[in-house]
Amino acid sequence: MQEIGIGLLGFGTVGTGMVRGLLRNGDLIAGRCGIRLVLRAIADQDVTSDRGVEVDPSLLTTDAEAMIKDPRVDVVVELIGGTTAARTFILQALKLGKPVVTANKALLAEHGEEIFNVAAENDADLYYEASVGGGIPIIRALREGLVANHIESIYGILNGTCNYILTRMENEGLAFDDVLKQAQDLGFAEAEPSLDIDGWDTAHKTAILASLTYGLPVSLDQIEVSGIRGLDPIDIRHAKNLGYRIKLMAVIKHVGGDVTAQVRPTLVPLSHPLASVSGVFNAVMVHGDVVGDTMYYGQGAGPDATGSAVLGDLVDVARNLASDSKQRIPAFVEHEHYGSIISSSDMPAKYFVRLSLQNQPGSLGQVASRLGARGVSIASMIQEPGPVDTYVPVVLIMEAAREMDLLEAMAELDSLDIVGEHIVSYGIEEFQAD
Amino acid sequence: MQEIGIGLLGFGTVGTGMVRGLLRNGDLIAGRCGIRLVLRAIADQDVTSDRGVEVDPSLLTTDAEAMIKDPRVDVVVELIGGTTAARTFILQALKLGKPVVTANKALLAEHGEEIFNVAAENDADLYYEASVGGGIPIIRALREGLVANHIESIYGILNGTCNYILTRMENEGLAFDDVLKQAQDLGFAEAEPSLDIDGWDTAHKTAILASLTYGLPVSLDQIEVSGIRGLDPIDIRHAKNLGYRIKLMAVIKHVGGDVTAQVRPTLVPLSHPLASVSGVFNAVMVHGDVVGDTMYYGQGAGPDATGSAVLGDLVDVARNLASDSKQRIPAFVEHEHYGSIISSSDMPAKYFVRLSLQNQPGSLGQVASRLGARGVSIASMIQEPGPVDTYVPVVLIMEAAREMDLLEAMAELDSLDIVGEHIVSYGIEEFQAD
Repeated sequence: MQEIGIGLLGFGTVGTGMVRGLLRNGDLIAGRCGIRLVLRAIADQDVTSDRGVEVDPSLLTTDAEAMIKDPRVDVVVELIGGTTAARTFILQALKLGKPVVTANKALLAEHGEEIFNVAAENDADLYYEASVGGGIPIIRALREGLVANHIESIYGILNGTCNYILTRMENEGLAFDDVLKQAQDLGFAEAEPSLDIDGWDTAHKTAILASLTYGLPVSLDQIEVSGIRGLDPIDIRHAKNLGYRIKLMAVIKHVGGDVTAQVRPTLVPLSHPLASVSGVFNAVMVHGDVVGDTMYYGQGAGPDATGSAVLGDLVDVARNLASDSKQRIPAFVEHEHYGSIISSSDMPAKYFVRLSLQNQPGSLGQVASRLGARGVSIASMIQEPGPVDTYVPVVLIMEAAREMDLLEAMAELDSLDIVGEHIVSYGIEEFQAD
Repeated sequence: MQEIGIGLLGFGTVGTGMVRGLLRNGDLIAGRCGIRLVLRAIADQDVTSDRGVEVDPSLLTTDAEAMIKDPRVDVVVELIGGTTAARTFILQALKLGKPVVTANKALLAEHGEEIFNVAAENDADLYYEASVGGGIPIIRALREGLVANHIESIYGILNGTCNYILTRMENEGLAFDDVLKQAQDLGFAEAEPSLDIDGWDTAHKTAILASLTYGLPVSLDQIEVSGIRGLDPIDIRHAKNLGYRIKLMAVIKHVGGDVTAQVRPTLVPLSHPLASVSGVFNAVMVHGDVVGDTMYYGQGAGPDATGSAVLGDLVDVARNLASDSKQRIPAFVEHEHYGSIISSSDMPAKYFVRLSLQNQPGSLGQVASRLGARGVSIASMIQEPGPVDTYVPVVLIMEAAREMDLLEAMAELDSLDIVGEHIVSYGIEEFQAD
C-alpha cells in the first residue's frame, strides 16, 4: 500500500490530538483510502514531555528546518500556531514544493495572500479545514459541496469560548466576569482572553470564510469587530423576553455585488437553528442561491475535533499525491465576480438598544421624537419599573433603518440629560432574506 | 479555459433544476475552478415541453444511447430516476469509461454493488451526493471531511415529505390523512405516497449511508423499516408532554464491531438539535470517535437543492478530468474493518408505548407485573381520565431493556382482555452515548 510521510510541526495539545487520532484510526483510514498515513517526524522545542500518546522517541526532533527538508516527509503539518515561526516554516515547506496542512487561522487571516501565492508559485497544496469551525468540514462544504452556489450570506458561531460564556450566563444568570473566570479555571478560556472575547479569533475565521467564498483577499481591518466583553446579563434576559438569544456572530453578506463582513454580538430569534447552538459548539449557516439554507454544526475547538479536520486534510493531500493531482483545488482562487468588502453602515439593520432613562413624564416621548427625526421607528419597548425621577432601564427594539442613521440617533440620545450611563446596542438578525 | 462536456439524461424537474443552476452560475463556477461546465446534450422522451429554462433546442434528443456515446459528452448526469432505464444507461456510460453523476437513491440502494463494480472495472468516476439529503453535502462529509473518524452513529431525518407531515400534524393538531391529502395537493407528496410515508425512501438513503460509512454492501432487506402511515396525533401530543418530538429517523449504529440500521418513527428529546428540524428540511447527525457530534442541515429535496448537489459532483468530476485523477475517490470501497449488518433486537432500547386500558382497579398493576416478569420497567406513565370500566389511553415510557424483550412483553400485553385495540409503540433515542 502506498505510504505518505507526515512531518508534524508542533507537538502541543492540537498536535497531540492529531497524533492520537492517527494512531487510533490509521488502519481504518488505510482501509478506506488505500493509502497509509505514516508519521515520519515531529519537530517541537520540547522533545521530552509525556503527551500521553505512544510515539517512537526517535521521531522527535528540535530541528524543524531539517525535518521540513527530510525527503521522507511528503507533507508538512503546521500546528505551532502564532504568526512568526509558523509562517517561516510553512513558506520553507511550500518553496520545496511540499504540501502543507495547517490549522492556523491567525496566520492565514494576516498573511494569507503571501502564503497562498507561494503555494501557487511552487505548485504545492495548502489545506486549512481546521482553521475554521474545528471539526466541522465547512471549508470543504463551501469550496466543493456548494461550489455551484452564489452565496448570499454566511452566519457563523465560530468561537467556542464566547458561546460557552454566553450559554452559562443565560442558563445560570451569572455575570460575565464570573463565567469568564470559571472558564479560565476550567481551561475553556485563555489567561489572556482578548483574542476570544473581543472577537478577534472570530474575525480571523471571518476573513478566511469571506476570502474563500467571494474570491477576494479580505484583511482584518476590513471587518467590523466587536466582542462580548462586559456583556450585561440584563441584556440576555431582556433579549429572551423579546424572543431572542444573543450570540457572538460572524455575519458575511452579499450586498449588491459587494460584501459586508462583521463580527458582533447579535440577537437571533429563539426559533432559529443557530439559537439552539449551545456551549462550546460552533455552527455555520450558509445561504446559497441554488441550495437555500444549509447549516453545519460541531465542536469548534479542542485537540480531537481539530485533529479530525487536520487528518481529513491529510487524506486529501495524500489522495492528491497518490493520483498526481497537486493543486487540484488551489488554496485560494481570486476572481472577478464580486466587488469589494464594504462597510455595512448604509445597509438596513434592526437594533436592540438599552438605555438608562429618567423616569419622568415626557422622557420616552423625547426619545421617540429624536429617533423619529432621523427616520428611526421603535418596534417594541420594555421599561423596567422604578421610582419617579430615578434612572430606569428601558429596552427598545428598533425597526430596520440604515445602520448609520440608527447609530447616529443613538449617539444623540446618549447626549441627553434624561439618558444616564452609556447606551448599549446590539444588532438583530431576523434571517428573513433567507 | 478547459471545458467539460455534460450529457444530461432526464429533463424532468430535477434535470431542469440542475440546468437552471448551471445557466445561472456557470460563469461563477468557471471563475472559482478554472474549468467551464458546458451542457452538450439533453436526452429525454419529451423534447418539446417548455421547462422554463432557456436551452438551445438543438441540444435536445430522444436518443439517450447516442448521447452517451457522443465524444463531446465527457460526463453523463443521470436524473431519470427509477431502476430500469437509469441502470441501463449508467452501465453503458461507465463501460465507456465515462464518469457518471446521479441522484438515484433507489438505484444505488438496489443495484449499488453492480454499478460500483462496473465503475471500478472501467476506471470511471461515479458520484452520488444528490442521492442522500438533497443539497446537504453529507456524502462528501462522510468520506472526506470525517474520513479519519470511526463513526459511532448516524441519525438522519432524510425524507422531507414525512417531516413536513409530522411538523404540520404537531403545529396544527391535524390528522395524518388530512395532512397527507393537503401535501399531495401542494405537490409535497406523491399521489402514490408509499415510498415516502412507509419509510422506503429513507431506507434507500440509509442503505447508501451505511454502506459508505462501514465499507459493507448493505441491502434493503437488512434494514428494519417502519414508516409514519396512520400515525395518531394523540401520540405526537403525548410525546410532546413527555419532552419529545416524533421524527421519522434513519438510525445507523456501530455495535461491537457490527452495524445496525433502522428506519422508524422515533421520539427525540425536544432539546436535541434534530428535534428543531422542521418542515421539508433534512438533517443528519454524525458522531465520530475523534470529532464528536457533527450535524448537517438543509433542504432534502426539490429541484434546486438537488441541482446544487449534482453540480457540486460535476465540479468534482471536472476537476478529476482536468487533473487526470480519475478514481481519486472510488464510489465505494469495501474493507474489512467492520463485521456485518445485524438486527437491533438484542440491543438495549427505550420505548414509548400507548395502549388502551380498561379503567378498573388493578389494571395497571397487571400491566406492570407482566412487564416486570420480562425484566422491563416503566419509567413514566400518563393515564387519560375516563369513566370506570371503559377503555382509556395509557402512555408508558419504558426504561431501556433488550428490544426483543420489550417487543415480546408488548405482544403479551396486547393479548390481555383489559387491553383494547392494538398497542402502539415507538422507539426513543436519548443520544446519551454521544
